[in-house]
Amino acid sequence: MAKRHVDAKRLVVVGGGFAGLELVKRLRRERGVEILLLDRSNHHLFQPLLYQVAMAGLSPAEIAAPIRSLLSRQANARVLRSEVTDVDLERRVVTTDEGDEHPYDWLVLACGARHAYFGHESWEAFAPGLKTLEQATEIRRRVLDAFEEAEKEHDPERQRALLTFAVVGGGPTGVELSGALGEMSRFTLARDFRRIDPTLARVVLIEAGPRILPSFHPSLASRAVRGLESLGVQVWTSSPVTQIDADGVEIGDERLRCRTAVWAAGVRPAALSTRLGVALDRQGRVLVGPDLSIPGRPEVFVAGDQARVEGPGDPLPGIAPVALQQGRHLARQLRRELAGRPREPFRYRDKGQMATIGRRRAVLEMGHLRMGGLLAWLAWLVVHVYYLAGFKNRVFVVLQWAWAYWRFRRGARLIVGKSWRFYPGEAGETSAKTGA
Amino acid sequence: MAKRHVDAKRLVVVGGGFAGLELVKRLRRERGVEILLLDRSNHHLFQPLLYQVAMAGLSPAEIAAPIRSLLSRQANARVLRSEVTDVDLERRVVTTDEGDEHPYDWLVLACGARHAYFGHESWEAFAPGLKTLEQATEIRRRVLDAFEEAEKEHDPERQRALLTFAVVGGGPTGVELSGALGEMSRFTLARDFRRIDPTLARVVLIEAGPRILPSFHPSLASRAVRGLESLGVQVWTSSPVTQIDADGVEIGDERLRCRTAVWAAGVRPAALSTRLGVALDRQGRVLVGPDLSIPGRPEVFVAGDQARVEGPGDPLPGIAPVALQQGRHLARQLRRELAGRPREPFRYRDKGQMATIGRRRAVLEMGHLRMGGLLAWLAWLVVHVYYLAGFKNRVFVVLQWAWAYWRFRRGARLIVGKSWRFYPGEAGETSAKTGA
Repeated sequence: MAKRHVDAKRLVVVGGGFAGLELVKRLRRERGVEILLLDRSNHHLFQPLLYQVAMAGLSPAEIAAPIRSLLSRQANARVLRSEVTDVDLERRVVTTDEGDEHPYDWLVLACGARHAYFGHESWEAFAPGLKTLEQATEIRRRVLDAFEEAEKEHDPERQRALLTFAVVGGGPTGVELSGALGEMSRFTLARDFRRIDPTLARVVLIEAGPRILPSFHPSLASRAVRGLESLGVQVWTSSPVTQIDADGVEIGDERLRCRTAVWAAGVRPAALSTRLGVALDRQGRVLVGPDLSIPGRPEVFVAGDQARVEGPGDPLPGIAPVALQQGRHLARQLRRELAGRPREPFRYRDKGQMATIGRRRAVLEMGHLRMGGLLAWLAWLVVHVYYLAGFKNRVFVVLQWAWAYWRFRRGARLIVGKSWRFYPGEAGETSAKTGA
Repeated sequence: MAKRHVDAKRLVVVGGGFAGLELVKRLRRERGVEILLLDRSNHHLFQPLLYQVAMAGLSPAEIAAPIRSLLSRQANARVLRSEVTDVDLERRVVTTDEGDEHPYDWLVLACGARHAYFGHESWEAFAPGLKTLEQATEIRRRVLDAFEEAEKEHDPERQRALLTFAVVGGGPTGVELSGALGEMSRFTLARDFRRIDPTLARVVLIEAGPRILPSFHPSLASRAVRGLESLGVQVWTSSPVTQIDADGVEIGDERLRCRTAVWAAGVRPAALSTRLGVALDRQGRVLVGPDLSIPGRPEVFVAGDQARVEGPGDPLPGIAPVALQQGRHLARQLRRELAGRPREPFRYRDKGQMATIGRRRAVLEMGHLRMGGLLAWLAWLVVHVYYLAGFKNRVFVVLQWAWAYWRFRRGARLIVGKSWRFYPGEAGETSAKTGA
């Protein structure tokens, strides 16, 4: 359809996350390449701040932007909102859910990760993960709903279950979620309710391993525990979850009665990986060589959470800096290839890691530097605002935060979504029934 | 449950819209009254700007705020998120969907309006109305979805149907919706797509009567038509819709093939009105006396879109200023009653009416003053920003608008909602099935 240079290489990128989007943007001046970016959602999402949407601190539009508009000035790139269902490595073609085929000269897979429930997929209904805007607004709805229901509940035991929140998984996401949840009930909601006392809300962070934030130095992890406890969060370590249902969470023979649980315990890569017929690691990540290509398929690359690069630092953490650096690296390699130069191996530059604990604390680790408290939180703020895609988003998020900080309020405490009942699928059915 | 003054009067207010919220706020210093505000949603909604959410100009959180937090400092008011299902006028008790009963000394019903499909309720699935945040985000999803699908569609006829949008009803809401839709495709989306040309999108405003904006002076209505046409909107008058289905809209034997339609053609008051066993007008509004009370029930008042006040200006339009003035009037009357003084009749002070047409035009009518164009739009802007509840919202909406105005962008173009599949109801079922 599109006009193309006779010799232009067709690059298909699957996934508009950090890796895919960075790659496409870095190729914006490249005339020798024709890019097709496929993503099943219409927006690029700044996932590190997704927990703020779930905790009603930010609106979805503040941390997401339409991929189409982020790339609207890039003449060599097209965007389609399509789910890729299959890749034919022999014919060099990807297939979408509409049955359309898109041929490629180069293919980059950067589909990200999903939550892993370790064989207990039924738990997902009771403890959703936090990977998409839909999940974030659903968690927000459940949390705010629980407080509203508790205000009306007469039975003290049911009320207690409504005001108990379990966060499963003590990595950075679990720490940030439970901190924000503790803070929200302690400060933001405290004055809004009359019958219940939101400060009595119980937030429990449940970790199977011996300590939270296992990727951080132990001294920072215990600093995080103290920070969480000051926000009223109970931290349970060495507590592997054995059951989750509508009634609560079980750890062995102990049961925590709660109406709301969130899953932050494990991720597995996209379903597409298994379709490729190539070697995956135990977590389902595609094993790629030092140049990020699939062994024997130099024209197919995998990046971001979907990839497992063997080499120094292996395995790399599933975080935004890794994906960004891989996207940048791939753009450079494709440019080199167009110029007839050989490939270079990918090397991750570790810029450290950080996690926030509530409204003005964080832990930060960069090489041998370790920090906690307000200074670490300010560093966290600067880094996240800087990276947040799009100038507008940056300004608005800062204003929103400044406001929330000053007023101890949360901007987006809306319960939306459950009651609207018309979806296109249902519409079609109605049409058939009425014979209209 | 709550501590109460022995002599405090129990005031139950049903509905946290303009009328109900204004009433409650105006009674904030009144110690002799104990207020319970019931609303089935947790937020107060600034409905006059709802079309901006549907057209991706604003985020839900920018035009809505939790009722609970708007009233958090008001010691004499309690808020419960509950749907009132019944009113027992004899026993002076309202019943909620949880089966709880709340006795009252005074009752104010301000439940607002729903869309009326004039006996064709099946049309709602294909042409949703615009009354709630859920409906606004659903319309946004459908509109943005249609463009995404059109970009992928190979069949030219289906593509044309995807790019055709019908707005049914030529009142202010229909005019504002179709203007915003025309503008969005003409300016905002135009540069984002490669295969389709969004400026070829066809927006049709369909009105059954002989002209649009029947409540305005004919000269302003024709000015609005010209404004809409310059945004690419076709205005069809004298075109009563006879059928709406998945395939499009029918006017007699003419069919407009379109995938997306929006209903702005008629409203009917809340379902609760029919439960009261009192006299309603043809549109289902409760007939109230000059003091807004139900005849023979001086302790029961109805306000806002739910009420029909007989008297000068009858019937009053279903707009925010009427509701606000009625809320204020009721607060005054209840204070007078506490002081042992007689009631006064409600008198509507007509401050005029206005409607925007796209990004910098509006029509405005105040008594004998009639205005169109940029000046009217600026007046519209000032009035709407001024009334938007809550200081924060005001600042953010102005910034958002300034940004959109400057950059010709829309801030909230996210497609969210369809794919998240876990709702509490389903969760319960899953639990039963797995026996967990």
